[in-house]
Amino acid sequence: MSGAGRLIGVGVGPGDPDLITLKAVRALQEADVVVHFAKAGRAGNARTIAARHLRAGVKELPLAYPVTTELPKDEAPYCDMMRAFYDAAAADVAAHLGEGRVVAVICEGDPLFYGSYMHLHVRLARHYRTEVIAGVTGMSGCWSAVGTPMVQGDDVLAVLPGTLSEDELVRRLTDADAAVVMKLGRNLPKVRRALERAGRLARAMYVERGTMAEEKMIALADKPDDCAPYFAVVLVPGWETRQ
Amino acid sequence: MSGAGRLIGVGVGPGDPDLITLKAVRALQEADVVVHFAKAGRAGNARTIAARHLRAGVKELPLAYPVTTELPKDEAPYCDMMRAFYDAAAADVAAHLGEGRVVAVICEGDPLFYGSYMHLHVRLARHYRTEVIAGVTGMSGCWSAVGTPMVQGDDVLAVLPGTLSEDELVRRLTDADAAVVMKLGRNLPKVRRALERAGRLARAMYVERGTMAEEKMIALADKPDDCAPYFAVVLVPGWETRQ
Repeated sequence: MSGAGRLIGVGVGPGDPDLITLKAVRALQEADVVVHFAKAGRAGNARTIAARHLRAGVKELPLAYPVTTELPKDEAPYCDMMRAFYDAAAADVAAHLGEGRVVAVICEGDPLFYGSYMHLHVRLARHYRTEVIAGVTGMSGCWSAVGTPMVQGDDVLAVLPGTLSEDELVRRLTDADAAVVMKLGRNLPKVRRALERAGRLARAMYVERGTMAEEKMIALADKPDDCAPYFAVVLVPGWETRQ
Repeated sequence: MSGAGRLIGVGVGPGDPDLITLKAVRALQEADVVVHFAKAGRAGNARTIAARHLRAGVKELPLAYPVTTELPKDEAPYCDMMRAFYDAAAADVAAHLGEGRVVAVICEGDPLFYGSYMHLHVRLARHYRTEVIAGVTGMSGCWSAVGTPMVQGDDVLAVLPGTLSEDELVRRLTDADAAVVMKLGRNLPKVRRALERAGRLARAMYVERGTMAEEKMIALADKPDDCAPYFAVVLVPGWETRQ
């Protein structure tokens, strides 16, 4: 461990600013530097959620992703570019840690659940004192907004990226009691077909911006179009007996 | 909807009292009645977590499970007994709702993720105004306590009850990038064998009372015994490349 700097991954929850934890609020108030990931030129959801808890005049370090559109993730140029971006971001954060500062990286949802913070964590946690503050995940926010019991008793839950192939989605949707399909965007038509083939379309709920002011939710079978932002989710609740 | 009563399922998080959300604290402060499930004669984790946020003198309605030891869940007498218990519990809560009171049911973790609250929700949400306040799940608390990146990119996560058969655990552990195995207790020796057969034992972390004062964590391969409380979990992190 080098010096007095401290890294804190701070989960700020799914969108509703009141779904942040007391621990996260305290971390934001003691931080010397607040770091957030976002698309270039945008505030980013985590920054918006945390806004009211930042100290006036606190030093902020926005980290702007080098791409703004979704690219095939297995292509080498994309991977190289993202790795270089995270290396540089970690170096920027390390500079503050090396000066003994407390650096809070704010994360939508939970920091260690599909979050960009993890790229900093694996580069820095061995070298600096590090703490992770769990947050309410986006999927919890979505099923609470719908008010649908999700898993109970001995249910198996599968969390699936919508980027999987249609056949793979069918296989996994058939094999689980309950499922959350993430990363929809342009994958929605494929996800819809997979749910239909797996016999799960009738139970599937589509949720966009769960817990936020612009929240939308509809039974997927009733959704008249295939437009979906990347961070919308489809929920397939389990607990079929409901006793 | 009947009258002015309002039911609120309140997630209070995984154990650390500071991992409760601002929204949950507010709900506890406006509640006329606070309901909590527990084993007979014990305070229950949710009650302990929420203690400091309850209004002095608030009406409490503890609901004591009719059994204190784990019974085979598919046996008819057990199912009948639990159903009768939840029916009676829902009737007790409905009596307060019928009087126009705000009733907060406090839930360890997240209310709609394997929680007892769900048994009240399915009996009452059609008849009374109902809100669910998402909470930080026990599994998020556990992987944050360990500080292990859990899932990234296109990882598939499986949430598995330790009650599954050994062969079924092997099959599902082999098929997922990351897994959380819950409900350990007497299932731990079987879960350990399944992880070994699936080639995942070396990555598995055992976590007991994550985020609480008595928190314990150890690589499962290094755990010298098979003693585990029912609510301990095993984490098998994904994101093998970690770039």
